[in-house]
Amino acid sequence: MGTATRNRILEEAARLFTEKGYEATSVQDLAEALGLSKAALYHHFRSKEEVLYEISLQALEGLCRQGERALSEPDPKVALLRFMEGHARFFEENRPFFVAMLQGLQSLSPEKRAVTIALRDRYEGMLRSILERGMALGVFRPLDVGLTARAILSLLNWMIRWFRPGGPLRAEEVARFYFDLILKGLEHGAS
Amino acid sequence: MGTATRNRILEEAARLFTEKGYEATSVQDLAEALGLSKAALYHHFRSKEEVLYEISLQALEGLCRQGERALSEPDPKVALLRFMEGHARFFEENRPFFVAMLQGLQSLSPEKRAVTIALRDRYEGMLRSILERGMALGVFRPLDVGLTARAILSLLNWMIRWFRPGGPLRAEEVARFYFDLILKGLEHGAS
Repeated sequence: MGTATRNRILEEAARLFTEKGYEATSVQDLAEALGLSKAALYHHFRSKEEVLYEISLQALEGLCRQGERALSEPDPKVALLRFMEGHARFFEENRPFFVAMLQGLQSLSPEKRAVTIALRDRYEGMLRSILERGMALGVFRPLDVGLTARAILSLLNWMIRWFRPGGPLRAEEVARFYFDLILKGLEHGAS
Repeated sequence: MGTATRNRILEEAARLFTEKGYEATSVQDLAEALGLSKAALYHHFRSKEEVLYEISLQALEGLCRQGERALSEPDPKVALLRFMEGHARFFEENRPFFVAMLQGLQSLSPEKRAVTIALRDRYEGMLRSILERGMALGVFRPLDVGLTARAILSLLNWMIRWFRPGGPLRAEEVARFYFDLILKGLEHGAS
């Protein structure tokens, strides 16, 4: 039951942080939304920052799990497609956690931010590994790996600004379109 | 002199909105940062929202001007490159206006938001025109124009999250890398 309440707090907090912003959400707001006293909340989390930290860790750990699965694909093109689809699917299925994590980084204390950034770097490192493997095999052309990875994450992450569930496309379908666009390019081939 | 003060208010407001967020910035904060009284501020703008609105209009009008120049290039590939470079350059040179505009849309009243969105749609329409022309000429492959335009703006706009002036690359150089990536794709051509 402790865990159930804890998860309920995280879910509600992620929703509020996403809608109102982390800074604009008070512990009082969170307690009211949950129908809990502030004392009950503090029984589970020492601070609002602790809640954001836990949300960020869960989001990044979820992303890393999907990244590991993509990375295990031997074909670099398939691995890249899986990575992009998995990122978009994780975003769609865990939108409040994902958005609260992406937007909350600068609100964490230096120590917590360092842990969060290390996890994010680990995740982005998986994408870079996929790209590097593809370049080493001659499947991808030789490009700046860091900027290419940044381009891919920019495409996917900007979805927090416009993608709404229930629209004509699933997030995964958008990811497949983006994969196709950056893989084959916009230009008609000479072939 | 009225115009000079007005511009100084807009510059300072754009900086504060970008750093602290629009909601978290009070008219009092703005007056203090400028060394003006609130009464003096209200002499120039009726409300904080009016300030954000003016910032958003100036940012979008600046983007539209650069979009027009890109659109006037007859070669669709050159036009697309100019559009992407121009967007990135405008962002780098007018960062506070650009970021305050992008982040402030949801804070505007429905009427002001409608005007702002119409301008943004006009700007995005220029990018779609460039893509459509390229597809009609067979220079670009036939793709969903709306999603392709969205991809391009996602790449460029996500720079507000990571790009810092004074780094190893100018924003325009990043835009050229992105242009190359989506134009030619990541894959080694069969040719």
